[in-house]
Amino acid sequence: MSRFFSKTHASLTPYTPGEQPKDRKYIKLNTNESPYPPSDLVRQRVASECGRLMLYPDPDCSVLREKLSEKLGVDKEEIVVTNGSDEILNFAFLAFSDSQHPVVFPDLTYGFYSVFAQLYNLPYEEIPLDENFNIRVEDYIGINKNIFIPNPNAPTGITLPLSDIERIVASNPNSVVVIDEAYVAFGAESAVRLIDKYDNLIVTHTFSKSRSMAGGRLGFGVGNRGLMRDINTLRYSTNPYNINRLTMEAGIAVLDSDSYYLENCEKIIATREKTAEELKKMGFEVLDSKANFLFAKSDKISGSELYEKLRRHGILVRHFEKPRIKEFNRITVGTENEMNTLVSVISEILKER
Amino acid sequence: MSRFFSKTHASLTPYTPGEQPKDRKYIKLNTNESPYPPSDLVRQRVASECGRLMLYPDPDCSVLREKLSEKLGVDKEEIVVTNGSDEILNFAFLAFSDSQHPVVFPDLTYGFYSVFAQLYNLPYEEIPLDENFNIRVEDYIGINKNIFIPNPNAPTGITLPLSDIERIVASNPNSVVVIDEAYVAFGAESAVRLIDKYDNLIVTHTFSKSRSMAGGRLGFGVGNRGLMRDINTLRYSTNPYNINRLTMEAGIAVLDSDSYYLENCEKIIATREKTAEELKKMGFEVLDSKANFLFAKSDKISGSELYEKLRRHGILVRHFEKPRIKEFNRITVGTENEMNTLVSVISEILKER
Repeated sequence: MSRFFSKTHASLTPYTPGEQPKDRKYIKLNTNESPYPPSDLVRQRVASECGRLMLYPDPDCSVLREKLSEKLGVDKEEIVVTNGSDEILNFAFLAFSDSQHPVVFPDLTYGFYSVFAQLYNLPYEEIPLDENFNIRVEDYIGINKNIFIPNPNAPTGITLPLSDIERIVASNPNSVVVIDEAYVAFGAESAVRLIDKYDNLIVTHTFSKSRSMAGGRLGFGVGNRGLMRDINTLRYSTNPYNINRLTMEAGIAVLDSDSYYLENCEKIIATREKTAEELKKMGFEVLDSKANFLFAKSDKISGSELYEKLRRHGILVRHFEKPRIKEFNRITVGTENEMNTLVSVISEILKER
Repeated sequence: MSRFFSKTHASLTPYTPGEQPKDRKYIKLNTNESPYPPSDLVRQRVASECGRLMLYPDPDCSVLREKLSEKLGVDKEEIVVTNGSDEILNFAFLAFSDSQHPVVFPDLTYGFYSVFAQLYNLPYEEIPLDENFNIRVEDYIGINKNIFIPNPNAPTGITLPLSDIERIVASNPNSVVVIDEAYVAFGAESAVRLIDKYDNLIVTHTFSKSRSMAGGRLGFGVGNRGLMRDINTLRYSTNPYNINRLTMEAGIAVLDSDSYYLENCEKIIATREKTAEELKKMGFEVLDSKANFLFAKSDKISGSELYEKLRRHGILVRHFEKPRIKEFNRITVGTENEMNTLVSVISEILKER
């Protein structure tokens, strides 16, 4: 750090995005992208919107929020659109926590939560998952702290039933509970319908995974109007034009071609289940994922060795060098062809040993 | 605010973007957009990039930074690309100031500076412009505080010569000086070539104005490697994918068709000068703007009345209801046709009185 960097950031450790090596062509199963391209409608609308690129986008994101509100059955004022769901998570950390209002989240979860907590010097606690990588609901009941929980969780893919989410939200009426549903479209129950019942709940979604828009940076939060007003106060205090025109138009077109994306989700779910079976047949322990990735380990090969060997075979997966999970790899569910290749390459790697 | 909003934000007043009324078609001269559309190359490249929207963008922004580095004659490591220049300004406030390191900026300037200072609860001071709306350089010499100065300044359009900028930077070696060059392409001298001489200087640019990309949200900062590393620490702690694929590709294509944009800037400068003359002929006081807008007032009509009447005639300009400048309007320089219409509408309005 330079001699000018504020000492308040002295212990800040930034997030590490998944690698994007350029040395060769890889089957990319490391960042939970969709293997399916955007719909034709998205391409057409974006190309046409490009002619208006010299004009600022609508900071109110009116049309997009209107369409989201119809789709989700919530009011437009209960939605805030953001630059990926990372941005609404960022706002939620900054908005509701401070030295008097600590944050908690699982110890194994999306790596950005601890970064946001550090960035704003917020007191935070990581609550351990149980020995099977499940969130222990009891640990979150009536704790009177702001809570961030992904459902499904990452990198495990394991879900909580909506009834458990509701117990957590209901038992912490004076704290904000954020349910991060980045992967909800692949098999978890959404908590969106609870937002009118609880004024302390925010549900966040992203277009990155199920809507093939990781490159577009579009996410949103749904919650009580009061919470969404607070988030908007921060949005208008950082970057009111946070959604550029092209991404906004792409998002609208996605919602106008939703059946295409729902079919892709079904394909990904079917491919996930099939791949999980194949991995289990080869002796892998595979967690019960309801996301677009699998979290798996084998007694026959260490996590880092499998990661390295797959990489040499042109397949990228994500390996986390953390004590509890270093024998695992997180494998994004690609196309059926890609996953067939993965399975046969793993089978070869195991044979070679 | 909701009962959950942290009291640390109690006095935060968000930025107010320029209005975007949808009731009719306006000649839009209120948000300093370029009247010229993006180049054909931008359209082609964006349309083609859309097919890769399901993949995360390059968080390193390699290709774009490479091209910028060639164009600006600085090293790639001296550039950070951001979501509009608002984002690098945001990072610069958060990175270098704290309770021990206050910020200063002119009292009449870009409205976002005070918002950022409030957002992070930073001590800040607004240094008054002189009676002719000039920055008094002496007020900034050796003050040992972090400094933000737009050059040209907004909403006045008035510039400082590079020698004055250098005196400010050189006399505050233990503080960071940010020169916000959002409008530099319309006639000011850039401070970019000072960055290798001073390790405390950041220069920020945007593609919004001169590069017809207000709708794309692309900006960047140039400065010493140490400062840029700090900014990157914050970027990777908030949103490493801050530049989406479509905007990144548009930005690259802009740099590949730069002569088109430079011609547009020349047209805008010529139109600005012509419009300024016409306004002066009608008795307006017009500040000496080197930006893509004019800041003007008339003794014959109040600032708010002119704003309202132009609006009724289908022309939007920007009016700030602040004590020192409420008799002025900020008028973006549009096409020559648009400005001819503006001039004749103003002439009619003055006659009607």
